[in-house]
Amino acid sequence: MIAERTVTDWWSTAVSEIQPGEIRLRGYPVEELIGRVTFAEQIWLMLRGELPTPGQGRLLEAALVAAVDHGPQAPSIAAARMAATCGVGLNSAVATGAGLLGDVHGGAGQQCMEVLQRVVDGEEAPAIVAEYRRRRAYIPGFGHRFHPRDPRRDPLLALVQEAVHAGEVPGRALEAGLALEAALAEGRERPVPMNIDGATAIIYAELGFPSELGRGLFVLSRSVGILAHAWEETENGARIKGPLPRPLLAGYHGVPKRHPDRMPDPHVPFEDASSSKT
Amino acid sequence: MIAERTVTDWWSTAVSEIQPGEIRLRGYPVEELIGRVTFAEQIWLMLRGELPTPGQGRLLEAALVAAVDHGPQAPSIAAARMAATCGVGLNSAVATGAGLLGDVHGGAGQQCMEVLQRVVDGEEAPAIVAEYRRRRAYIPGFGHRFHPRDPRRDPLLALVQEAVHAGEVPGRALEAGLALEAALAEGRERPVPMNIDGATAIIYAELGFPSELGRGLFVLSRSVGILAHAWEETENGARIKGPLPRPLLAGYHGVPKRHPDRMPDPHVPFEDASSSKT
Amino acid sequence: MIAERTVTDWWSTAVSEIQPGEIRLRGYPVEELIGRVTFAEQIWLMLRGELPTPGQGRLLEAALVAAVDHGPQAPSIAAARMAATCGVGLNSAVATGAGLLGDVHGGAGQQCMEVLQRVVDGEEAPAIVAEYRRRRAYIPGFGHRFHPRDPRRDPLLALVQEAVHAGEVPGRALEAGLALEAALAEGRERPVPMNIDGATAIIYAELGFPSELGRGLFVLSRSVGILAHAWEETENGARIKGPLPRPLLAGYHGVPKRHPDRMPDPHVPFEDASSSKT
Amino acid sequence: MIAERTVTDWWSTAVSEIQPGEIRLRGYPVEELIGRVTFAEQIWLMLRGELPTPGQGRLLEAALVAAVDHGPQAPSIAAARMAATCGVGLNSAVATGAGLLGDVHGGAGQQCMEVLQRVVDGEEAPAIVAEYRRRRAYIPGFGHRFHPRDPRRDPLLALVQEAVHAGEVPGRALEAGLALEAALAEGRERPVPMNIDGATAIIYAELGFPSELGRGLFVLSRSVGILAHAWEETENGARIKGPLPRPLLAGYHGVPKRHPDRMPDPHVPFEDASSSKT
Repeated sequence: MIAERTVTDWWSTAVSEIQPGEIRLRGYPVEELIGRVTFAEQIWLMLRGELPTPGQGRLLEAALVAAVDHGPQAPSIAAARMAATCGVGLNSAVATGAGLLGDVHGGAGQQCMEVLQRVVDGEEAPAIVAEYRRRRAYIPGFGHRFHPRDPRRDPLLALVQEAVHAGEVPGRALEAGLALEAALAEGRERPVPMNIDGATAIIYAELGFPSELGRGLFVLSRSVGILAHAWEETENGARIKGPLPRPLLAGYHGVPKRHPDRMPDPHVPFEDASSSKT
Repeated sequence: MIAERTVTDWWSTAVSEIQPGEIRLRGYPVEELIGRVTFAEQIWLMLRGELPTPGQGRLLEAALVAAVDHGPQAPSIAAARMAATCGVGLNSAVATGAGLLGDVHGGAGQQCMEVLQRVVDGEEAPAIVAEYRRRRAYIPGFGHRFHPRDPRRDPLLALVQEAVHAGEVPGRALEAGLALEAALAEGRERPVPMNIDGATAIIYAELGFPSELGRGLFVLSRSVGILAHAWEETENGARIKGPLPRPLLAGYHGVPKRHPDRMPDPHVPFEDASSSKT
Repeated sequence: MIAERTVTDWWSTAVSEIQPGEIRLRGYPVEELIGRVTFAEQIWLMLRGELPTPGQGRLLEAALVAAVDHGPQAPSIAAARMAATCGVGLNSAVATGAGLLGDVHGGAGQQCMEVLQRVVDGEEAPAIVAEYRRRRAYIPGFGHRFHPRDPRRDPLLALVQEAVHAGEVPGRALEAGLALEAALAEGRERPVPMNIDGATAIIYAELGFPSELGRGLFVLSRSVGILAHAWEETENGARIKGPLPRPLLAGYHGVPKRHPDRMPDPHVPFEDASSSKT
Repeated sequence: MIAERTVTDWWSTAVSEIQPGEIRLRGYPVEELIGRVTFAEQIWLMLRGELPTPGQGRLLEAALVAAVDHGPQAPSIAAARMAATCGVGLNSAVATGAGLLGDVHGGAGQQCMEVLQRVVDGEEAPAIVAEYRRRRAYIPGFGHRFHPRDPRRDPLLALVQEAVHAGEVPGRALEAGLALEAALAEGRERPVPMNIDGATAIIYAELGFPSELGRGLFVLSRSVGILAHAWEETENGARIKGPLPRPLLAGYHGVPKRHPDRMPDPHVPFEDASSSKT
């Protein structure tokens, strides 16, 4: 005999409490949240344990809205589109896309939050920029290989600034981000403006999210684009969609044709179906 | 030489248009959406191609809010919590959980939408109930193995009814759902009220979503709970969390110990590390 | 207090028995399997509960060897290659690829086994072919959109035939497959020879695997190609690999540029970083 | 117009060459591999580009055989079992399990290979042990929280030793592993013997695999156990299997019941189905 607590404690949570006829999320009966909070506010509640203020909620909505999609060129989107043609449900297509948002493809916002924190903690932005330059690395959240200036930067930063002026967020992460941007521009003809990862990193940092959740929130946001693209492919009705259209063959640059010589031929010849009398 | 169109058309989309310095989602410049639409409205835009009316947006918010979580007992949540302890990022934890929302665990809403459509198309609810009873199947979206009455039913249906009265949605799916519920209750002591899958199926059907997207929207909603639970486990710092606490061993009911007798022992004995002189 | 059995039975298994210092797989101490059975024989043991005969093992090796890869054009392979460039481990790349082997991309073998069983159970092959033709469907396991004759067919069928002659397998699935192939060729100029899915379906059926495991074994086999391709991409060092090379943009066929007109502009203008005095 | 090479080179590979009627893997026509190489040898060929010698193949078989399963307590196995009850195919169940083999749950072998390499490269084993002790970390590949002595250690090391004596592998990784094991045992009453990750790390290192492929090979091996367990759950017919049996509820340790007070009640009361006159 073992104590029931041993096993139910193993799965104990502070997120939700479920009893027959009752579902409480972070203490609130779900029926009192429905119709009263937006989806973004619910996301905040579930991750943070408390409801956001209206100003906090507005910033979160904006960040989630901004990052939903960047076209089918992104591997997370392309893989989800392919998945949708392989006979798996939309849930698997979303899983395929979300799974690809790893450190390289989905981690820049999280990494940028960590750099912002260093500045907030007192390091000088130019010193950090110099450090990255020394190891020939990009500062996550700045610059874009495609957009000279990411169109999502300005409206997001404007909303943060507005929230700072209204006293809704402290503004230190915004200050840190702008300091890094200025340090990056120093002595260059073309500036290296903040990209979507940098701008949302500022918002998530201003709102007090830990950096790991920066990734988590990006995953929720991008899952919307993943779903939209997977659904488009589902509606198209394509089957087994590969990266290249049918007439094209992927190239080959390996060893030329050769034969295994180490083993004797074990094969009994197999007569053609037409003549087979098995 | 091949036409560039051949390959760019292969990945052509109507969801988003990306050009240097420009990101348009369903035709709208992303910078004009940021700060103006909620996350739920953005979800609608991405999936449907047009922005929702305020009334449509409100219903969508409610449905997304309602389904975020049902506790760590759900395999999608439990698996994501485990994933968070295995050294993968939160993106992988979300992928793990979302991936489990298949036909059985995540498909009831989608299936319920298909049954609602049959009633909307003219079939009689009692006949459908009789058909399911004959093949000893549950009608998806009704009844709950845990809640005598799902607490999410009433507030969701109240919002639909309000929207019907305001002329924002037609009300035919609501009517169909209530007809099925009444037919199910007929001649039973205990009714079989709509559950979360049924109530959100009504909303998604009233809003004109195809049934597959009913699943898709549920995945987006439940991903929030998946992320919240995975994050809780991350914060706990557990490593390699299995289903049972450490002192317990899973049971075994297979064949007793035995030895492979078909092959001679190939083993050279291996001396202990302490005496090894390799 | 609850009985310990309640929870340990919930996770009870007949696959493996773990005790301190002891690991038994299907009853066999793992240390007595190591060095004595091949990997393919171990797969058989784990899935079937008994060790295969040498002849059974040989057929299984051949089927697993045959299906490992069909090039980067396959979405399972392409998605895994993309995953490898996104900052996730090789485990996630394998998961991405294996996850795509759904009903359409990975289910033909399983479906073919079900058709073979119908013939073994007494249905006439020409009647089945006629049925598929009536509903304009392909019989799974026959024909290939790329290979006029799948080069894996002959050596696999030759091994089955040899095993039939040696009395190692009954030969009824082979007979069924050849009957279907003959019925498909009837009255056509070009035959529709068995493909890899058909040939391995015959092997798995001859070996007594249930059809769902036909899929399972294909997943194990193709995971090898998935891993090899993901690893090649890892070695290449590509980052965030999309379906098209950089200079190319995916096409767009959606609505032209437009503006949301339903809401007033909420934006405070945001001054440029260079002039910002936040 | 763009050159066809631009896009086909983007997907160019050295793994496989596919032409109508021809499939060559690492240069070998697939029909000449079928029946001539074992599945493990095929794995080697695909990952390494050349066929193994018989002695190399034997060691690889042993390592792959050894790591297939460690019971349902492992999160990778438990999650896959849950997946199998959620209405997804066995491919998704395998993907779920493989996806969990991240740095913590599946990376010890890879990490151990890196430590072995340090010893091979000339570092002293006792110094490395001291370094890990200083930062209170475990050396990956040694010790087991469950087995006082991992039963897979001895037969695997015996096979390596045998291969060293036969001149089939150099033996330096084995030496490094034993040196680490001896350094770890130094001054302790109870030794910290190599575990499965350590023993297979030695094999993969002796065979010349890069450490990342150590993880990859473990994923292939453990996928067998994942599939066997998922299949057992499929056969059981369980639906939506959570971590705890039904009568048990997961615990809750969050905030007590409370009510959102920031917004007025938007709800129109919803009359019961029986009285509804929508």
